[in-house]
Amino acid sequence: MQSTSDMIQPIKWQDQQLHLLDQRLLPTQQLWLNYEHASEVSNAIRDMVVRGAPAIGITAAYAVVLAAREAWNKAGVNWKQAMYEPLAKLAASRPTAVNLSWAIEQMTAIYVNLPETYSPEKALLEAATHIHQQDIAANQTMGKLGADLIDPDSMVLTHCNAGALATGGVGTALGVISQGYSDGKIKHVYVDETRPWLQGARLTAWELLQGKIPTTLQADVTAASLMASGKIHWVIVGADRIAANGDVANKIGTYSLAVLAKYHQVKFMVVAPLSTIDWQTETGKQIEIEHRPSREVTHIANQQIAPDGVKVSNPAFDVTPAELINAIVTEAGVVLSPSVTTMKKLHKHN
Amino acid sequence: MQSTSDMIQPIKWQDQQLHLLDQRLLPTQQLWLNYEHASEVSNAIRDMVVRGAPAIGITAAYAVVLAAREAWNKAGVNWKQAMYEPLAKLAASRPTAVNLSWAIEQMTAIYVNLPETYSPEKALLEAATHIHQQDIAANQTMGKLGADLIDPDSMVLTHCNAGALATGGVGTALGVISQGYSDGKIKHVYVDETRPWLQGARLTAWELLQGKIPTTLQADVTAASLMASGKIHWVIVGADRIAANGDVANKIGTYSLAVLAKYHQVKFMVVAPLSTIDWQTETGKQIEIEHRPSREVTHIANQQIAPDGVKVSNPAFDVTPAELINAIVTEAGVVLSPSVTTMKKLHKHN
Repeated sequence: MQSTSDMIQPIKWQDQQLHLLDQRLLPTQQLWLNYEHASEVSNAIRDMVVRGAPAIGITAAYAVVLAAREAWNKAGVNWKQAMYEPLAKLAASRPTAVNLSWAIEQMTAIYVNLPETYSPEKALLEAATHIHQQDIAANQTMGKLGADLIDPDSMVLTHCNAGALATGGVGTALGVISQGYSDGKIKHVYVDETRPWLQGARLTAWELLQGKIPTTLQADVTAASLMASGKIHWVIVGADRIAANGDVANKIGTYSLAVLAKYHQVKFMVVAPLSTIDWQTETGKQIEIEHRPSREVTHIANQQIAPDGVKVSNPAFDVTPAELINAIVTEAGVVLSPSVTTMKKLHKHN
Repeated sequence: MQSTSDMIQPIKWQDQQLHLLDQRLLPTQQLWLNYEHASEVSNAIRDMVVRGAPAIGITAAYAVVLAAREAWNKAGVNWKQAMYEPLAKLAASRPTAVNLSWAIEQMTAIYVNLPETYSPEKALLEAATHIHQQDIAANQTMGKLGADLIDPDSMVLTHCNAGALATGGVGTALGVISQGYSDGKIKHVYVDETRPWLQGARLTAWELLQGKIPTTLQADVTAASLMASGKIHWVIVGADRIAANGDVANKIGTYSLAVLAKYHQVKFMVVAPLSTIDWQTETGKQIEIEHRPSREVTHIANQQIAPDGVKVSNPAFDVTPAELINAIVTEAGVVLSPSVTTMKKLHKHN
């Protein structure tokens, strides 16, 4: 497990810059992009250079460092006022993953208490690094807690990418899968390719191959007949936002898998750090679902695959009701049969 | 409805050759390929120049004409013996759609009774043309029977392509949808893109746009949340093989939609001519499911979208149990709640 984590680190702070592995080009190209300006990082999040709720949170934390440095250089002692605009842009870069606003709030809570009279960069970089390190540790803990739920020799299905590329560490869902594979709990992983952005084909399959974990890639629509064949014991996914009642917003197609899992008596696990839980949102119905450009559906790698002028629906996320979920795994513990009542055991950690 | 049918004709017999519209290149290119040899037609079916169960059957019927002409030219009065090899290759070109073997059997029943002493081409071309014309008429009848089941102002979802490109006429599922739209029964059609081959994005969306029917294209995984939103009243699909008990083999993802439809109380209609019913196959469990090359999943339009060396599962079809289907529509009538008992009303027409 450690080796996968060591190999893939999509977010780095180096030479006073933020470095992001361009996830749009994987797996055929590995290109690093460097950022000195917070507004460029906002664009990178919007354009999915970096994606995955925890990774977006970590990236946003470093973007606050860049914003503070720019604000100090531009406005001196008035740097705090100069933070509003870049942070508003950052917060608006993607709407669904709550880790984005969580990270901005964490960083804001730090910077409002800093003195106005000297550069905030060092203190904020420490805070961002702490958020990054916390996420790495949370991944390790969730990996163990999730793997403990799985019987030996299980086969699992995952959707989208909730791995090292989506987080600071070994990943959420893929953290559980890596740990489960090491522990002999999991013997094979089926990966949904995850249209339209193909996070499963491009990112998850790539990570699992690097970790030498037995993997089969499939079109998303194959999941139902695979479950009917009795080959799948758990569906394991990450989350972009979890409501207070345990409803989960995650990559489009997650809800579909949850319904199919219920029908085929396959268990369903959601793995996410506490930073993904939005206690202010009572149920999944209140979660804003991002709709992304039509071109993600009509073109693949710049090749047109649909007729000119066709209308497209491209929601990036869906909401899975808590009653379809067997377990939500966080670094503070596991919630079985999530509901507004059972979720409360996590609330005290927040 | 007539106009769509008039515009799109993927199979033509002209100048003693079979002409196929190359469906691999649609919608960005419209290229016709001409065939003089049955073995080349077998390759065209295998490589999906033409696809869709009824269209494969019609194509196979014309391929028998080509095979007979070649046999006559090569073997003279021994032409019937010279048919075995090309017809065996033709029958093996794709395993799941039963219309292929049905058409070969129909044509064989004709040619075995022909005299050995003169060219069989004319008689067999008449038979193939009759199969083609029968399919056009069946589409019209099914369109009306299916549309009759739908309440006014309904919204429907279709998967894969069961349109003019998949048949001789207006299509099976798309025949119902065209008729339903003309009759005010259907006001909007959602189209699954249908990975991996993208028949929905490339073919169905293209056909519906040409027919000026309001259409929205979506990634396959979007269907579940669309159903949860209450926007879909019927799922309408074609079939590649229907077992005697009403189990339906169709494009991978159909079973997934049927489970999701049941869960969301959306009705599920299968539209297919009698030639798609395989009375020799008792249940769907006995239907052979074709597995197609990995490259259909790992590449799109020659662009690599998955890591080198990843293992792929690429079944082209799945089986939907009869109990998930509300109606099977054929040219000989509608079977509601299909089962081994209710299906018998169609048997007498065969």
